Amino acid sequence: MDKQQPSSSAALPDRTAANDEAPEGEKVSKKAAKKAEAKAKKAAAKAERQAANPAAQQQQEPSEDPAKDNYGKDLHPFPAALSPSAEKINLRSLGDSHFGKVVVLRAWMQNVRMQGAKMAFMELREERNWAIQGVLQVSKEGSENVVSKNMVKWVGGIPAETFVAVEATVEKPYEPIKSCRVTDYELHIRKCFVLAAAPAMLGMTLAVANRAITNFSDEEAKEAPGEKTETETEQAGPVATMLTHLDNIVMHKRAPVQQAIADVRIEVKELFRSYLRSHNFREFEAPCLIGAASEGGANVFQLPYFNKEAFLAQSPQFYKQIEIAGGRKRVFGIGPVFRAENSNTPRHMTEFTGLDMEMEIVESYQEVLHMLERVLLHIFHGIKERCAEEIKTIRSIYPSEDVLLPEPGKEVRLSFAEGQKLLREEGPEEFRDVRDDEDMSTPQEKALGALIRAKYHTDFYVLDKFPESARPFYAKVDPESDGSVTNAFDFFLCGQEILSGGQRINDPDELEGRIRAKGVDPASGGIKDYIDIFRQAGVPPHGGGGIGLDRVVSFYLNLPSVQLAAYFPRTPKRLTP
Amino acid sequence: MDKQQPSSSAALPDRTAANDEAPEGEKVSKKAAKKAEAKAKKAAAKAERQAANPAAQQQQEPSEDPAKDNYGKDLHPFPAALSPSAEKINLRSLGDSHFGKVVVLRAWMQNVRMQGAKMAFMELREERNWAIQGVLQVSKEGSENVVSKNMVKWVGGIPAETFVAVEATVEKPYEPIKSCRVTDYELHIRKCFVLAAAPAMLGMTLAVANRAITNFSDEEAKEAPGEKTETETEQAGPVATMLTHLDNIVMHKRAPVQQAIADVRIEVKELFRSYLRSHNFREFEAPCLIGAASEGGANVFQLPYFNKEAFLAQSPQFYKQIEIAGGRKRVFGIGPVFRAENSNTPRHMTEFTGLDMEMEIVESYQEVLHMLERVLLHIFHGIKERCAEEIKTIRSIYPSEDVLLPEPGKEVRLSFAEGQKLLREEGPEEFRDVRDDEDMSTPQEKALGALIRAKYHTDFYVLDKFPESARPFYAKVDPESDGSVTNAFDFFLCGQEILSGGQRINDPDELEGRIRAKGVDPASGGIKDYIDIFRQAGVPPHGGGGIGLDRVVSFYLNLPSVQLAAYFPRTPKRLTP
Repeated sequence: MDKQQPSSSAALPDRTAANDEAPEGEKVSKKAAKKAEAKAKKAAAKAERQAANPAAQQQQEPSEDPAKDNYGKDLHPFPAALSPSAEKINLRSLGDSHFGKVVVLRAWMQNVRMQGAKMAFMELREERNWAIQGVLQVSKEGSENVVSKNMVKWVGGIPAETFVAVEATVEKPYEPIKSCRVTDYELHIRKCFVLAAAPAMLGMTLAVANRAITNFSDEEAKEAPGEKTETETEQAGPVATMLTHLDNIVMHKRAPVQQAIADVRIEVKELFRSYLRSHNFREFEAPCLIGAASEGGANVFQLPYFNKEAFLAQSPQFYKQIEIAGGRKRVFGIGPVFRAENSNTPRHMTEFTGLDMEMEIVESYQEVLHMLERVLLHIFHGIKERCAEEIKTIRSIYPSEDVLLPEPGKEVRLSFAEGQKLLREEGPEEFRDVRDDEDMSTPQEKALGALIRAKYHTDFYVLDKFPESARPFYAKVDPESDGSVTNAFDFFLCGQEILSGGQRINDPDELEGRIRAKGVDPASGGIKDYIDIFRQAGVPPHGGGGIGLDRVVSFYLNLPSVQLAAYFPRTPKRLTP
Repeated sequence: MDKQQPSSSAALPDRTAANDEAPEGEKVSKKAAKKAEAKAKKAAAKAERQAANPAAQQQQEPSEDPAKDNYGKDLHPFPAALSPSAEKINLRSLGDSHFGKVVVLRAWMQNVRMQGAKMAFMELREERNWAIQGVLQVSKEGSENVVSKNMVKWVGGIPAETFVAVEATVEKPYEPIKSCRVTDYELHIRKCFVLAAAPAMLGMTLAVANRAITNFSDEEAKEAPGEKTETETEQAGPVATMLTHLDNIVMHKRAPVQQAIADVRIEVKELFRSYLRSHNFREFEAPCLIGAASEGGANVFQLPYFNKEAFLAQSPQFYKQIEIAGGRKRVFGIGPVFRAENSNTPRHMTEFTGLDMEMEIVESYQEVLHMLERVLLHIFHGIKERCAEEIKTIRSIYPSEDVLLPEPGKEVRLSFAEGQKLLREEGPEEFRDVRDDEDMSTPQEKALGALIRAKYHTDFYVLDKFPESARPFYAKVDPESDGSVTNAFDFFLCGQEILSGGQRINDPDELEGRIRAKGVDPASGGIKDYIDIFRQAGVPPHGGGGIGLDRVVSFYLNLPSVQLAAYFPRTPKRLTP
């Protein structure tokens, strides 16, 4: 039994504001912030010393506390002192039928403040932003359920983000509670146990964790972490850098905005998967470890593999084509891909998730283009519907508007040449001379996105028939063209590429010819293996595409970086947590 | 336009048997096999020379061939000569309403044989083992749809596994076709185009690809590939080693047995995912690239990562616990994990797929155990129902019987000590002295599996309360015990472990104590980060488990190796394809 009654409260500053931070609107000078931090650290150290020696602490408390069995620390998931007959509630399903009933709630102590010595108000957060007000009041003499002054003091000192179990009656508050999502009920607490204590001072408060991140720099400010980790902005209160968020991953993930982003990401995957499954696509899994750098060798991670070398796959391209060659007809896969690119932009990570598909072509590669268009529209419409609440939460932190989508039958598909023409004729000055045989730059893409939005009222569109020079060796040259354009396309959302796809060459001789024409040696390791696939047996005409999941999520939600869409973002300087 | 009329037929031996191999039952001596191979290679080389020069070939053919527009090679997905009004059929949906209709089928030429000079019979396989008989016959003079002798000869020479598009009428065969899955229809061919040619000689025939693999040795026989790749067994015909299968991955994957295994694997994942989703589990994704070897450092792949070192994750343990700490309550993830273990056993690969889950515990870790039990039973019952046809296909190659599952409410859960007692008292002689504080060996596990099967009539059971010494540092010691056993368990299928799980320590001080007791430095890289998670904020009691997907699939189906359950198996010596 680990029951003990630490008194972290003594170490905590008096809580009058909503959290351990400056009141809203008040500007904190750097100096003051530093001072406050030093003070808090001192207090935290004191609290730790005390917590480590509960026996000494207990001596200070009157052992005859009549409420002593109703509170304390308890390492058991379900403290024995809680009534086994009390209903274990979830805040989402709380209703009028609960009025007056005794319930048990497990929640995070989001905030607690004393109202004099006999009363404490708290916000108990069960999950996401679902919180309810709890009230703890010293009981009248002779009451059945004793709440002592000691108990109120102890509960009032529970550090924020501590995991507690409370027993309480459900009551109607005097007026609707504005500070909590649950407005029409409150809990009158009679027992409160700490199941897992938070530190006296959090590395990052929930309020900070739930504000917009603007600084995604990979460079850690090592000299003065106290000053740089939380900087002042126009937002109401201090904000933290992405690095501070990653250093405090637990609080980062508890922020409702991050949970909402994760929920959107989950649904994007689910919509992709279920749509393709219902269209006879079969799942496959590409390996991460590969024997040769199949796509040229640039930006690839390499590692010792027993007596050989291995590489981390940059895409499942090779493998989804093997599935088609192997007779699977239509396949999709969701998995990690790796790029050893030393780029620090809002659009780059070294590990990210690809949504890939590949399918046989019956008459034209347009079948592939249309399938991809349909699955993406299904995703966009689907998350708007399924994740309305999550999107609202996200927009309260990262403002955005609905992306403009084409009406059915009015999808915008321009050829690459048409796109360049639009840029030349109606785009910014610097793009007057863009050429049809050169790939687009990111600024070009964004400018074109704006032009298409104005002209066609859509943020989602396709650029088809990319020039041969801008595509990899496996892209099928348009047989109706002079050889300069391919049956390959990119999809864009808000002027940024989210998908690359097209028809692949399925004839080994044609493939070998293109590889030679690209100046690549067809006998080199990964390349030879690739060509040989098409020599093993007749491979049907096919095409497919790869969608960047992190990009789709972050562009759709107008997030400032793909790092926010990832569970554990990997950048050249950051591999933890 | 790539239309041309190669005549690979000239290079192919006369086809009288069902395939390019010895008739069933006939034993081929090694010498004879070598001779046959040399002959076939010579023929293949000749065919290649001829195919490379179709013009020369065409000179030998009468240019006045009246059927010349009805056959040939055509690199377009849909040859222009095919009737656009013909229905494109799938064999699964072929019905009596198709009788007499003109249809188009795209399929692999599984087999073709001439019947004299005027007729050819073929097996056209659309997908998996769905094949139909095609008949091509020289047309009578004056027929609308001309089939010439040249055409029959050319089609008769199409190499096996070539992808073709045929136009035909659907007819009733004289008697049901035994050699094809579609028994009651046949196609009377009038046009036949090669869309993608197979080589004159396959590296591995479909018949061989579809036989049981018995040799999974990692050691390639380099000195005499011709002799060793296909060895004689008791099966009807030559079989190939796993390495030959991997060298001929396209044919390996075309084998109906491999497609059926992949289909079962897909459904296992889908059943896991959908069951947990419906029980409020949220998906998460663990990273592959990590900054420190969190689980001790043994058997971990390491790679240069810009100016640092990175490692490949051995499990998502750390990350699923971060999700719980981050307030996600119930999570699951499906993804790759890596072990740099130089083992060549039927149960090891260096990259495999984990099905992971983690959940808050409300009252007892038994909630986790029961949830995992339910999801696995859901999977086992689910694939039996959903994959009945696939399982039948697999059993025709790899015989097995239904695994014995417990009745609802009669799940078998033994404590580790009870398991050891059973082994001591009723197991083989060599296990008379097994101890309760030592982990089980694989032979012990298998012996116990046999004992439990005999006693409780189930192949699926749980061993709970593993000794502390046999579990990692994060396993929660049973607080009701003397400290020697944990709230940790393994699940077994047919005497082999498929899942490891249990309650985790969620108190940082308790965790640090255990880590020290295990002789690990709590300040070391990955370990410190791990402990710090629990110091960032109060983390609820939780537990979970990890299922080896490749193991579940291969044990359930009684496959001789987990390699057969993987899409692209990775072993210490094999990284390709």
